[in-house]
This record gives sequence, structure tokens and C-alpha cells, in this order.
Amino acid sequence: MKLKSIILCLVLVGYLISCKQNKAEITVDPLPSFNEVASKSKIIEFVSKVVDSTNINYVAPEDRIVCFDNDGTLWAEQPLPSQLYFVFDKVKELSQNNSKYKTESPYKEVVENDLEALLKIDKAKLISMIGEIDSLYHENYNQTVSKWLSTAKHPILKRTYTTTVYQPMLELLDYLRANNFTIYIVSGGGAKFMRAWQPQIYGIEENHIIGSTFKTETIQFEDSIAVVPTSTFDFYDDHLGKVINIEKMIGKKPIMIVGNSDGDLEMMEYASTNNPHPTFMLYLNHTDGKREFLYDEKTPAGRLEEGMEIAKKNSWTLIDMKQDWNTVFVD
Amino acid sequence: MKLKSIILCLVLVGYLISCKQNKAEITVDPLPSFNEVASKSKIIEFVSKVVDSTNINYVAPEDRIVCFDNDGTLWAEQPLPSQLYFVFDKVKELSQNNSKYKTESPYKEVVENDLEALLKIDKAKLISMIGEIDSLYHENYNQTVSKWLSTAKHPILKRTYTTTVYQPMLELLDYLRANNFTIYIVSGGGAKFMRAWQPQIYGIEENHIIGSTFKTETIQFEDSIAVVPTSTFDFYDDHLGKVINIEKMIGKKPIMIVGNSDGDLEMMEYASTNNPHPTFMLYLNHTDGKREFLYDEKTPAGRLEEGMEIAKKNSWTLIDMKQDWNTVFVD
Repeated sequence: MKLKSIILCLVLVGYLISCKQNKAEITVDPLPSFNEVASKSKIIEFVSKVVDSTNINYVAPEDRIVCFDNDGTLWAEQPLPSQLYFVFDKVKELSQNNSKYKTESPYKEVVENDLEALLKIDKAKLISMIGEIDSLYHENYNQTVSKWLSTAKHPILKRTYTTTVYQPMLELLDYLRANNFTIYIVSGGGAKFMRAWQPQIYGIEENHIIGSTFKTETIQFEDSIAVVPTSTFDFYDDHLGKVINIEKMIGKKPIMIVGNSDGDLEMMEYASTNNPHPTFMLYLNHTDGKREFLYDEKTPAGRLEEGMEIAKKNSWTLIDMKQDWNTVFVD
Repeated sequence: MKLKSIILCLVLVGYLISCKQNKAEITVDPLPSFNEVASKSKIIEFVSKVVDSTNINYVAPEDRIVCFDNDGTLWAEQPLPSQLYFVFDKVKELSQNNSKYKTESPYKEVVENDLEALLKIDKAKLISMIGEIDSLYHENYNQTVSKWLSTAKHPILKRTYTTTVYQPMLELLDYLRANNFTIYIVSGGGAKFMRAWQPQIYGIEENHIIGSTFKTETIQFEDSIAVVPTSTFDFYDDHLGKVINIEKMIGKKPIMIVGNSDGDLEMMEYASTNNPHPTFMLYLNHTDGKREFLYDEKTPAGRLEEGMEIAKKNSWTLIDMKQDWNTVFVD
């Protein structure tokens, strides 16, 4: 009788050992690069309540949609969004064998590193230059971007571009993923450019990366079809464009938006109102001139003015980079 | 010593019992509505090899993308795609209080059930009528569609429309889902219409439903934003349109396409060539005039002519509805 009990007990032990192996550790701090501040506790509070099936604010996994802006939200964007440095470097390369790039605007200004002149050039011309590079380097585009990312350095931060990604935001992505959120990038940057590196760096697949686009052309061969980009601009995924793309490509309202600028305001207003679920709007405020960039009214990209007003009015959550993050960049 | 061995053995037994509980049953027939025919074994063979990490044809879960056409692939589409019957019923409703719908073309032909005249009307006019209904019923669109689906009957099959869904295809969706495929709908039907009912019926979320679209307008209120549909046509998601949308919204090549008509041919040609992964192209051939519809050269929707030629040339897999399915419709 005693032996039977021991045996049963041991079978139970074996079972429990196995069960324990199947459970993830849940006591680990999910956001170690955040100090113990309000933004961190608000994030954790929101996530905890929407995943708790006994909570009145529970949201089913299929509705746990979060959209992240990219430039200035997940990686640095000053003095110019990094995609432009990629384009500039390619224009400089092209100028070595083609005089057009040395003499014509806006290439000339790029080759001469004349940032001041560039900022005065018609935006449409700059955008068309981005499309031209996308189109010219189409065939080996992803490899071209990868190679550039592995060598080129950010002009001020003196780091490779993928190490200008914010470590606390990678932790936030992991935390949301672990809680079965579906994560989208919804950014003003080029969809083609972002899809070339974000799957590896953020763990977000191409189908969840929404960005600005150039028109494509299809070429039909005898038994295959190719889709090639043109340099004709198609859609700017910023401000209201983000709202339109969310409706078109996601088809329902996200419950959480993470952004850093006025360009993210419209999608926040859209997601936070008439939403059947609880929502969480999160702005990253660039307050750290020492470790990153202190944005002000002269900041060329990613200004947060109207958004800041609305955020305060609606009690949205703000991350104060200087105060809230003990680490800024990934290693 | 002997006792120790017994104890160890029992711990092991406990562990194994627990392990077994964590494994899904894999001996159940995943496609019971398919007869034991070539199409069934080819489907299972393809899925088995791409999920087997020891197989040279292994495909990682993030690349297991499959696109399904909807009309005529997942549910019946004869004599007209079912979305049109929804639109017709709404036009008839509207005609009760607005004489425009009784006297003007193409509404008049709808109200008079004059199918022959309707088929002669300029396609753009018919499309614009679809957009008008989408736009008029915008506010309670999903409820309007749900209500219609729960009561309206297919004119020939005499079943509610959601019971014109093919049971073997639901099994295929479940089978692919269980094998970690990411499933998209890529259909000529309206995205808005499909998103109103497919999440419930197919278990496919809005963000994975790609269809034809009408332009949208955004309306800004003081602190919220609404996106409203217009009746201006935007994009026809058929033929090359499917390829363009796959590039834009999915961003990488699917490994499997399931369709039934020439409208699916381009996405099959696109996906099956220059793809780093093994691919599987599957056509449903409507051969069953008794249980469903026998398509021929007079079939108004979903003809399979050029596609059939290319399918044979490339040894793509064909489902012969009459021979291959022991059940056609869901209950």
C-alpha cells in the first residue's frame, strides 16, 4: 500500500516536471530598459487588463491590433529619416558613372552634401528621387539595403542604422507579441525599404508592414509575371493616409497606437474613438538631447505639437525619453 | 537497485503521459469530404513536405502563405456572384420609397428581375451601383449583410448563401491553419462585403481579406475621424489586380494559390515562378451540374479556359468537383 503511494507520487512528480517545462516564465520584467515610471506601469496595466479573460476590459486576441509608427518611434529619424541617407548614398554611387547625378537637381545637392539647399527643394522632386532609386536597384533591392545597413553609419550618432533602433521599443514589441497582439508598422517611410530589413530587425513580417508606396507595373512573360516598381508616387502613408491604409489593409480599428509625431495623430484619433474595445495611445517624446535628439519647433522631421496638445487633453500616455528610458539604443 | 529502476521508470511514464497529452492527434483524416483521389493526396503530400523540418522542401511558417479566391472557390458563384444578389435585394427595398430605383437604369432592370438586360448594361454602371449600396448602407453595413445572409436564399440552390460554402474547402482551410499556413482571401468581390461575413464563416480575419475596393473619404470631427466609402470605384482585384494587391498587401510570394477561374491565373503564374519555395497551384473545376453548376463556355462568371490550358501544361492540381468531393455544401 505504501509502495503504491510512493509510485503514484513519483508519477505525479514526473508529470509536474513536464508541466513546468511547458510554462513560460512570467515573473521576468518585460520592459527592463524602462525605469519604474508612469509610462511603464500604464503600458503593463493596459496589456494586463486586455489579456485577462476575467476582466471587463478583456479583448480577444484577434482584436489585439497595435500599429507602430517607425521613424522616430522605433528608430532615430534626425536630422533626416534614415531612408534618405540610403537614397543619398546610392545617388553618390551613381554620380561616379553618370554626370546627370552631378549636375542636375536634386541629385547635385545630394552629391554636394548641401542639406540646406535640399530642404528647399520641392518635396515632389525628392520623393521622385526615392522612387528612382527603388526602381533602379529593384532587382537586388533587399540585398542592396542589407549591405548598406551593415556598413553605413548614421552621420551624427556614428552607429550603423539598425543600431539606432530603440532597445526599449524592441522590448515593447516582444512584450506585446508574447501577449498575442498583432503588430503592424504604419509609417511614412517607403514600404519597399522597410520590408527589406524590418522582418529581421523587428520580427515583423512583410504583410504587417504598411508604408508609402510608388506605383507598380506588371510585366507578363510567356508563363510568369513580374511586378516592378516605377518612380511614380502612389500614396503617402502619413497623417490621414495612415487612417486610410489601416481601413484598407487591416480592416478594423487597432486598440493601441504607438507614435511620436503629429503625423501619427490622425490614426490615434481614429483608433481611440468609436472603438468597441479599450484603447491605449502612446507617444514617445524626444526629450533627450544628450543620448538622442531633443526635438523643438525647428526639428525638420517628426514634430509633435498638435499631437501633444491632444494627448494632454485626452490623457494619452507619454514616454519621456530622458526620464523614462535607462537605455536608448540596441547594442 | 531494482526499486530505483522501477521508480525511474515510473517517473518516465508520468513524463511521457504528459507529453502525449500535449500532442495533437494527427491520425484523423483532415479532408473527409474528399474522396481518396489524386487531388486529395497531392494536397496532403504538399502540406506534409513543407511542414517537415527534415525535408529539403521545408518552408518556415512565416513563408507558408496561401491565397484563396472566394467566388466559385469557397462558395457558389452561379448564375451571378452572390454579392450582386445582396445589392439587388437592397435596390428592390430602396425602390419602395424612391421612384428613381423603379425608372432609371440599371436599377429598373434589377427591380424587374431582367437578368438578360442587366448582362448587357455597361459594367461600370453595375459596379457603381454596388458602390452606391456600400455607401448608402455604410453605417450599419455589417449588420445589414448579416441580416440578409440569415434570411435570403440563393435563387437556384434554394439555400441561404452561407450554406453555399463548400464543405471540403472549409476542411482545407482548417487543415492549412492547423499546419500554420497564413491564409488570405484574394477575390474579385468587394472587400467591404467579404469582411462583413467571412471572419465568422471562414475564420479569416479582416486584415487577411483582400478584395475590390471603392474609394474612401475621411471626415474629420473635432476629436475623431471617420472613414466613409464613396461609390467611386478604386481597384478591381481580379487578374493582374490580384498580383498587384498581393505585392502591396502581403509583400511576398504565396507558396499556394487556390482558385477556380481565369481570373486566378495571373496570381498562379506569379506565385509559381521565381519563388524560392516549393509551390502548389490548385484549381477547382466545376464539373458537377447535379449538385452544383456545370460550367461551360456560356458560364457568365468564373470561366476556366486559359487557366485550364496552363494548369495542364504545368501539371497543376485540379479538383474535379463531381469525382473528388463526396459532399459539396456545408449543412
